[in-house]
Amino acid sequence: MLIVQKYGGTSVGTLERIENVAKRVAKTKREGHQVVVVVSAMSGETNKLLKYAHHFSKTPSKRELDMLLSSGERVTSALLSIALSEMGFDSIALTGRQAGIYTDDSHTTARIDNINSKCIQNLLDEGKIIVVAGFQGITKNGEVSTLGRGGSDLSAVAIAGALKADLCEIYTDVDGVYTTDPRIEKKAKKIDVISYDEMLEFASLGAKVLQSRSVELAKKLDVNLVTRSSFNNNEGTLITKEENIMEKPLVSGIALDKNQARISLRGVKDKPGIAASIFSKLAEENINVDMIIQNVGHDGTTNLGFTVPQNELERAKEIMEKMHAADHLEYDKNVAKVSVIGVGMKSHSGVASKAFETMAKENINIEIISTSEIKISMIIDESLSEQAVKALHSAYELDK
Amino acid sequence: MLIVQKYGGTSVGTLERIENVAKRVAKTKREGHQVVVVVSAMSGETNKLLKYAHHFSKTPSKRELDMLLSSGERVTSALLSIALSEMGFDSIALTGRQAGIYTDDSHTTARIDNINSKCIQNLLDEGKIIVVAGFQGITKNGEVSTLGRGGSDLSAVAIAGALKADLCEIYTDVDGVYTTDPRIEKKAKKIDVISYDEMLEFASLGAKVLQSRSVELAKKLDVNLVTRSSFNNNEGTLITKEENIMEKPLVSGIALDKNQARISLRGVKDKPGIAASIFSKLAEENINVDMIIQNVGHDGTTNLGFTVPQNELERAKEIMEKMHAADHLEYDKNVAKVSVIGVGMKSHSGVASKAFETMAKENINIEIISTSEIKISMIIDESLSEQAVKALHSAYELDK
Repeated sequence: MLIVQKYGGTSVGTLERIENVAKRVAKTKREGHQVVVVVSAMSGETNKLLKYAHHFSKTPSKRELDMLLSSGERVTSALLSIALSEMGFDSIALTGRQAGIYTDDSHTTARIDNINSKCIQNLLDEGKIIVVAGFQGITKNGEVSTLGRGGSDLSAVAIAGALKADLCEIYTDVDGVYTTDPRIEKKAKKIDVISYDEMLEFASLGAKVLQSRSVELAKKLDVNLVTRSSFNNNEGTLITKEENIMEKPLVSGIALDKNQARISLRGVKDKPGIAASIFSKLAEENINVDMIIQNVGHDGTTNLGFTVPQNELERAKEIMEKMHAADHLEYDKNVAKVSVIGVGMKSHSGVASKAFETMAKENINIEIISTSEIKISMIIDESLSEQAVKALHSAYELDK
Repeated sequence: MLIVQKYGGTSVGTLERIENVAKRVAKTKREGHQVVVVVSAMSGETNKLLKYAHHFSKTPSKRELDMLLSSGERVTSALLSIALSEMGFDSIALTGRQAGIYTDDSHTTARIDNINSKCIQNLLDEGKIIVVAGFQGITKNGEVSTLGRGGSDLSAVAIAGALKADLCEIYTDVDGVYTTDPRIEKKAKKIDVISYDEMLEFASLGAKVLQSRSVELAKKLDVNLVTRSSFNNNEGTLITKEENIMEKPLVSGIALDKNQARISLRGVKDKPGIAASIFSKLAEENINVDMIIQNVGHDGTTNLGFTVPQNELERAKEIMEKMHAADHLEYDKNVAKVSVIGVGMKSHSGVASKAFETMAKENINIEIISTSEIKISMIIDESLSEQAVKALHSAYELDK
């Protein structure tokens, strides 16, 4: 098999840990696989360099930041390659440029445009282990760029896609994706296999194992993604396309997102275009509106409710007040979003009603509901959200 | 003027010092000059990375080492550029690659093949301050290379040459070149101007301000070199071609090299080619033979004396013993080389005899003598070497 392995900052945080990573890579190679490794900077390194930059400027040039920050991954990749050579393997470290990762020129948040995998492919054909500095690429003008948060994951997925790798393993300090947050529900179980779309719901709903960008890219490039821990030998969670999943569970897991705030507008004039004008204004200001509910009133006005991330509430408030959008505005920070996620919902009815019944049994009021083919999300009182998660986890028998 | 300034590791050793460097660069720019800055890694950084590499291997791959070590200069150049931007200057950081520094592929000790200065020139024409990561270049195959010890000086001189800069200032923690080591002779004076050839004698004879490689390159490229301190505003020492020096002093300074060992061979067969075979064998083994003396004996044999660096004495001994080159071998580690250097010697007689007279007056025995157009070197007892330096410094009135 051709396997791409990505090791994050904590996995390469010390020289000893880099040595452990080398052993893990060596094991994979000895098993007869071709291996491309993508590494992050040693944990703490990127923050140190950022602190240095901010010593000089509150708003350092993004181009210069990229030159600065990209150095951390180069260090790790050179060190890991040296460690592998010492163990007798033929290995070579590549910068983002040498790995052929071309990006647009949005410094510090660049997007990968394309990958020229010829160099990596040739080196693989020579039997080498390739160690790529993650998080970085090169623009058309030959400038160093970085990919922003989760950038090394993106590097790994993009390379796996370009090489048509059999597997892309993302190593972190977590075993994989769980049916729900194990800190809330001890009975949470690790999920063996999950579809891209379910994982996207998990990721965007606050499960921090993988960033949505990486999962989206994996879906687009049809890359089999595995998330697992570099600190043990447990099997991780495979994220793949729905067709590859033989037994589709009705519900895969329960996600909780506490970073929610609700805005309610009462007495909005009930004329065409009013809601559109509100939401287009918010979009203009880069505020992510998530769930929306609208009730027609009896007096020619309408009531509108929606949620935004908590840290954007203040700005959203200001905008609403300036617009005089409604007679009455209400804000609530103490809400959370609980979601039931499962690709099996598509073909089964009764999943949603079980969620509502469960909430009713627990005496939890649902403020907003939103559903898609593979999830049911409910806005509820934040103080009851963990109780809700546990009840749903049990109702869908995820602990079994 | 177009000025290239190079700041070494101690000059950029902390964030505060980088700030000071930024102020110095800013001052030069405000005076109306075009400025290209070349920086080293923050002091200690390169050694830290080397230590990391040696944690994994005693003989790390040189290619990987270059990828590792070149990151230090990138960090400094990005930070300095950020600092300059914050002060309101239009500045840009360039890697060795972006600066167009092409080298051969001798990783860790690469030689500069040529410089494509088009990019720097264009950026200068736009009024920018250019901050180049020193010590590094790129091979024809697109691999990162580093230039070895004193590499950032070389980067600066090569860039100054390619741009036909008016001045190349090398900033260190020393004020410039002195008539002799001020730790030995307190009356030593800073030299205002000195020729490349004299400086080469100083450098190769143990004055540690500049490495010979940089001076040689400056001579070849006709670059006016200034060595000065980044910690004060004293004028430094200008190193330039002889024609530019109006008043040529008879003697510029006295150099002392204690890293010398003498080997004496007695009873070497006096037949053609015997000396040649000895020295070609030593050259083959990469031992730098410096001064040589040969006396014809009375019995058909000859006596041969020569010096090698102290740390190469052991190997030289072994080779001599294996060769059975002579009836009798003697070794002496307790010797030093004292040299009188001055471009004015070329056209004046009596300089050498004054040196010998001075040694005689001090009762110091001269073991080997070697002279060139611009220097007289003498091998003497190491314990008397500082006394000799002081006596010569005074005899040539260098303290006046």
